[in-house]
Amino acid sequence: MKMSDINQINVVKIGGNVIDNPDALERFVSDFAKLPAPKILIHGGGKLATRLSEKLEIPTQMIDGRRVTDRDTLDVVTMVYAGLVNKQIVAKLQAAGCNAIGLSGADANVIPALRRSPIPVDFGFVGDIDSGKINTAFIATLLKAGVTPVFCAITHDTEGSLLNSNADSVASAVAVASATIAPTYMHFCFEKLGVMCNIDDESSVIKEIIPDSYRELREAGVVNKGMIPKIDNAFRAVEAGVQSVTIKHSDNLLSDIGTVIKL
Amino acid sequence: MKMSDINQINVVKIGGNVIDNPDALERFVSDFAKLPAPKILIHGGGKLATRLSEKLEIPTQMIDGRRVTDRDTLDVVTMVYAGLVNKQIVAKLQAAGCNAIGLSGADANVIPALRRSPIPVDFGFVGDIDSGKINTAFIATLLKAGVTPVFCAITHDTEGSLLNSNADSVASAVAVASATIAPTYMHFCFEKLGVMCNIDDESSVIKEIIPDSYRELREAGVVNKGMIPKIDNAFRAVEAGVQSVTIKHSDNLLSDIGTVIKL
Repeated sequence: MKMSDINQINVVKIGGNVIDNPDALERFVSDFAKLPAPKILIHGGGKLATRLSEKLEIPTQMIDGRRVTDRDTLDVVTMVYAGLVNKQIVAKLQAAGCNAIGLSGADANVIPALRRSPIPVDFGFVGDIDSGKINTAFIATLLKAGVTPVFCAITHDTEGSLLNSNADSVASAVAVASATIAPTYMHFCFEKLGVMCNIDDESSVIKEIIPDSYRELREAGVVNKGMIPKIDNAFRAVEAGVQSVTIKHSDNLLSDIGTVIKL
Repeated sequence: MKMSDINQINVVKIGGNVIDNPDALERFVSDFAKLPAPKILIHGGGKLATRLSEKLEIPTQMIDGRRVTDRDTLDVVTMVYAGLVNKQIVAKLQAAGCNAIGLSGADANVIPALRRSPIPVDFGFVGDIDSGKINTAFIATLLKAGVTPVFCAITHDTEGSLLNSNADSVASAVAVASATIAPTYMHFCFEKLGVMCNIDDESSVIKEIIPDSYRELREAGVVNKGMIPKIDNAFRAVEAGVQSVTIKHSDNLLSDIGTVIKL
């Protein structure tokens, strides 16, 4: 396949709550296998890492409501995200006929990250990503070979240390990099139907959000607080070249139900 | 790089005892990074999986002196081998300037395996490998892209389940597959200098073993019991097309000290 043979790329993020639900994950994996290639999957972590830390009696340190990744915690998330969750998803995708390859950001130096400054708050081995530094050529090589990359949110500092990154940020950075290969459509899949006017009314999904309507929705207080970082993140991705970002339920990957965010 | 640009491939296996020794591993990783590419690394597991199983109170079941891989144990070895050990080695290699990519056998379906028959003994999720089924084309794609594959011994059954395989067998199967791409030289690195006439005499390393001399060494009782499976495994690899197999100390990857096994 030549580079010009790639007409569009689907980049899909699957959230931790779906990873924690075996039936929902099974349905999602089956649908993702059916999605036309070339495509890329980024998965969150789920609660398994927290449970493993508890069993191993590794104390959880929180600062300002956010978890600190000390060395023991880094080992745990590396084992769970890059090991267990990533390889289980890859094995399931292979069984469903999708030629998946599981990757951390260290593999083929595909997602180098910068360890977050310990000032003002030291979050430990946490890495922030610059989409401009992603190894886009290698991602293109995989896609052209008919292979589907499956990323966990473990990255590295290029100096020998792994880092724990935010899965939404990994997904956005990968989508922005992918947009330099071919027009890229991003799908954020989680346990809700999309951005809703009324969280209790399934028919209230907002079909489309553009910058003007987003401003109105925020001013009217319609968009709930937890959704704002996701929508902001989506706008940053479309401003950086992604065609659109759709926020949708993990059961609806192959359907149109969801909220499309675009310019 | 064209396929014809690959003149020879080095396939290196590093044993579990070296993985368990941080200083020895650091030295080995630094040497492996200096080894001319194209090259492939296969690593064993070490004792970390056993220690993690103990901490998690997962009972170890042994049959005929061999460990049974039940579902909990499979999760542990997947976390430790495919997650922690594999990604830590990859991050260290990246820091040393080697563009490594960590892989399990499920990734890109590169090492499909057959779950061992439960009759006469059920060892659980244990997979045996057929070197003829290895995804050689994908390995060649990586090598031609200047990427160095780093394999753990986790494989898959192509039906959705991961499997625990023997790292020596993975290494041999990968080397035999690699020999169909270009002439392949294999290096088994561990904590001894090679095959020795006298285990207490470091100067007694046997420089070369060919089938005739192996027969004599065995008849004379010179080769010790624990070494026989390693040498048999090496002869199977050279009989299947690998140029030579060198058994050597992990500190001697870049030197000639060791035992060369060839036809």
